[in-house]
Amino acid sequence: MRVGMIGLGKMGLNLTKNMVRNGIEVVGFDLATDNVKAAQEAGAVPASSLEDLVSKLDQPRIAWMMLPAGKPTDATIQQLTTILDKDDLIVDGGNSFYKASLKHNELVTNADMKFFDCGTSGGQSGALNGGNFMIGGDDAAAFDQLLKPIFELVSEPDGFLYTGAAGSGHYLKMVHNGIEYGMMEAIGEGFDVLENSQYNYDNEAVAKLWNHGSVVRSWLMELAEDAFAKDPKLDDLLGRMHSSGEGQWTLQESLDMAVPTPVIALSLMMRYESMRDADDNFTGKVVAALRNGFGGHAVDKK
Amino acid sequence: MRVGMIGLGKMGLNLTKNMVRNGIEVVGFDLATDNVKAAQEAGAVPASSLEDLVSKLDQPRIAWMMLPAGKPTDATIQQLTTILDKDDLIVDGGNSFYKASLKHNELVTNADMKFFDCGTSGGQSGALNGGNFMIGGDDAAAFDQLLKPIFELVSEPDGFLYTGAAGSGHYLKMVHNGIEYGMMEAIGEGFDVLENSQYNYDNEAVAKLWNHGSVVRSWLMELAEDAFAKDPKLDDLLGRMHSSGEGQWTLQESLDMAVPTPVIALSLMMRYESMRDADDNFTGKVVAALRNGFGGHAVDKK
Repeated sequence: MRVGMIGLGKMGLNLTKNMVRNGIEVVGFDLATDNVKAAQEAGAVPASSLEDLVSKLDQPRIAWMMLPAGKPTDATIQQLTTILDKDDLIVDGGNSFYKASLKHNELVTNADMKFFDCGTSGGQSGALNGGNFMIGGDDAAAFDQLLKPIFELVSEPDGFLYTGAAGSGHYLKMVHNGIEYGMMEAIGEGFDVLENSQYNYDNEAVAKLWNHGSVVRSWLMELAEDAFAKDPKLDDLLGRMHSSGEGQWTLQESLDMAVPTPVIALSLMMRYESMRDADDNFTGKVVAALRNGFGGHAVDKK
Repeated sequence: MRVGMIGLGKMGLNLTKNMVRNGIEVVGFDLATDNVKAAQEAGAVPASSLEDLVSKLDQPRIAWMMLPAGKPTDATIQQLTTILDKDDLIVDGGNSFYKASLKHNELVTNADMKFFDCGTSGGQSGALNGGNFMIGGDDAAAFDQLLKPIFELVSEPDGFLYTGAAGSGHYLKMVHNGIEYGMMEAIGEGFDVLENSQYNYDNEAVAKLWNHGSVVRSWLMELAEDAFAKDPKLDDLLGRMHSSGEGQWTLQESLDMAVPTPVIALSLMMRYESMRDADDNFTGKVVAALRNGFGGHAVDKK
């Protein structure tokens, strides 16, 4: 088995190592030559361009993308459809919005190639040691024949699922991440209450306890345990919660369908809130002005 | 070791079986004689009253309560302080609000006895096979000497934590349950989005997949997998989400401290909402009336 891996960042490089360890030949390409070098050191065949990568694969080729969603993914798929051949496969293992994947599917299908949208979970350690994959794509037979043998090698046992029609893999990954937002915010809020309580809890001990038989035991709580072990009060961190799109997409989707998802919605809003300058957010200014207006309540001026 | 178990419902009976299996002698009492009989069949010594239970224990006695919070717990602790002796221990293994436990601690301490508030997690299977316990109590030495050996036998490995001052065990369990509310609501919302999507997902297969290497793997997701395995669309259930107090207490506590916990708050509100008759909830009536008032929008009349 031979796979062309496009995008050798943290996820793509780890997945490459995972594949190589499992006897899959990988041809690796990345715009950053350092990343290509790292993949080569991990046992991959280096490629100097997309064309070079394509030339080093046998038909039907598997071009597996681990790129940021949006332009990098869009442009690469566009280009691949011009240099791959009929019946070649394009796997988008990144976090594309499922509606983008539907467009990609149309583009790829119109070029007589096959498209698979693959949501990848499990973080960097999963990519390296056994990932979690949700794969959509209209050609179930091609999945079974060409991709399933690969997923059986690089997944956590029982850690991949073919979900049917194109877009369904990234859709499922989107919802997975929406759930993840809510679970993480709930965990954060709980430790915030503990931190402000009249008691002195050892955060690491609490997380460790909760991972041994409690109802909230989870991988996220294990990650909390690891984080508190390194930095008991997380003093080294700012409380800024970046987000990369999936939570927002889940909310957009729930709005489109009028399905109430208040916890996912507020988890997302709290991430936005956390990214703002507390002294310079416009909601805050408006509310302060109104409180001052009706009640003469104090405002903090610049 | 000998323990007096008061309250032999689902949790108390399972914990009794757990103790008996681990060589701890249990004297069991419950107002329901059927429950006492079940405990006897499980190997416990039956007691016909609190007094009888107390008479069958050696000093310093351990009276371990697994009762509903509120009046049953309050009344039993009150009564125990009149029939136990100096230095005897009362363990409240139920879900009491920590402020109630602080009062109980005062009452018990004033009677020269020792009080421990013990949050119990892990559900019925945990109580039976290895529970998760968060234990507060002012007398650390008594904990180490008399209770720790018991928790070492009946807990999941690493599944108990002495958290210090009285009230801190139930406080921690309260916050645990607040986190649990948020995690469960997030999981529920995610599957609701999937269920309403354009794709046809196999809920059991999705939950199973997510339990094998994904970021959201968790015991709650395993319980979802079990539930979907039995009833793929949960057709047998109503979507009513009961609540037993801990989420509300977590929110009250966060309000007292002005700690923002929007996800825990909305998880609780969604539970309240789910218990209402959709056609007869007053918020809905008011909003419908206002929409009709300003815009002539249709209302659904009885």
